[in-house]
Amino acid sequence: MLGEEAGLGPRRGRRTLPAATPIVVDDADLSQIKFNADGLVPAIVQEQGTGQVLTLAWMDAEALRRTLSTGRSWFWSRSRKEYWRKGDTSGDRQWVREAYYDCDGDALLIVVEQEGRGACHTGEHSCFFRAFGETHAESQ
Amino acid sequence: MLGEEAGLGPRRGRRTLPAATPIVVDDADLSQIKFNADGLVPAIVQEQGTGQVLTLAWMDAEALRRTLSTGRSWFWSRSRKEYWRKGDTSGDRQWVREAYYDCDGDALLIVVEQEGRGACHTGEHSCFFRAFGETHAESQ
Repeated sequence: MLGEEAGLGPRRGRRTLPAATPIVVDDADLSQIKFNADGLVPAIVQEQGTGQVLTLAWMDAEALRRTLSTGRSWFWSRSRKEYWRKGDTSGDRQWVREAYYDCDGDALLIVVEQEGRGACHTGEHSCFFRAFGETHAESQ
Repeated sequence: MLGEEAGLGPRRGRRTLPAATPIVVDDADLSQIKFNADGLVPAIVQEQGTGQVLTLAWMDAEALRRTLSTGRSWFWSRSRKEYWRKGDTSGDRQWVREAYYDCDGDALLIVVEQEGRGACHTGEHSCFFRAFGETHAESQ
């Protein structure tokens, strides 16, 4: 028993990791997407199950390809000018479950299983945690 | 009875119109929003109740101000270079119920009661009706 427990090591009590579910797409799918002058398209990230909108981030063609082929969300950071895979620093990974593009092909909707605290670097679950009119409503 | 029925006139059988619920904001709220080089910010529109993401459209400061103050969604059309109020042509109006801005102040989330067929000019309820990998999945 002792050996068995020791064998489990640091995994004791850790819940099962979500599995990646890559989405297989062909060039015909990807050719529908219209990137802007900077080569980017906005990607809405929505939580599976709750339907909560978690964040809006940007993808170029390569980030989109990586997102679909790996089942993890990849974005292009406009401020840092680099790719980033959500959760690599924070541990708050996003596991892609469904991915859609809109009627004009210039916006994406990525449905994810959100791991960890949530999507926002502030520690909030969603980046959209501030409501217009909140201050006003509270002061009434 | 006849007079009573006649008195109802064209309203017979028509359901009650949703009421507009303007959101009162002050300049401090609005000053949080960062518009891009074109003076625009992406606005995610989500359906109240279902949580379905309906569309992504663009607002400038004036469209945002009109949206909050009137309780109907106003956007800036990048192709037509003009303001448009959703539903004025189609009848598929959006009644704003909640409005959020994200941690960076460069994206909006507008929660609406969607009237009519839906948000998409194609007749679909949501603009995000095409999934990546759908063709592949169907052919398997």
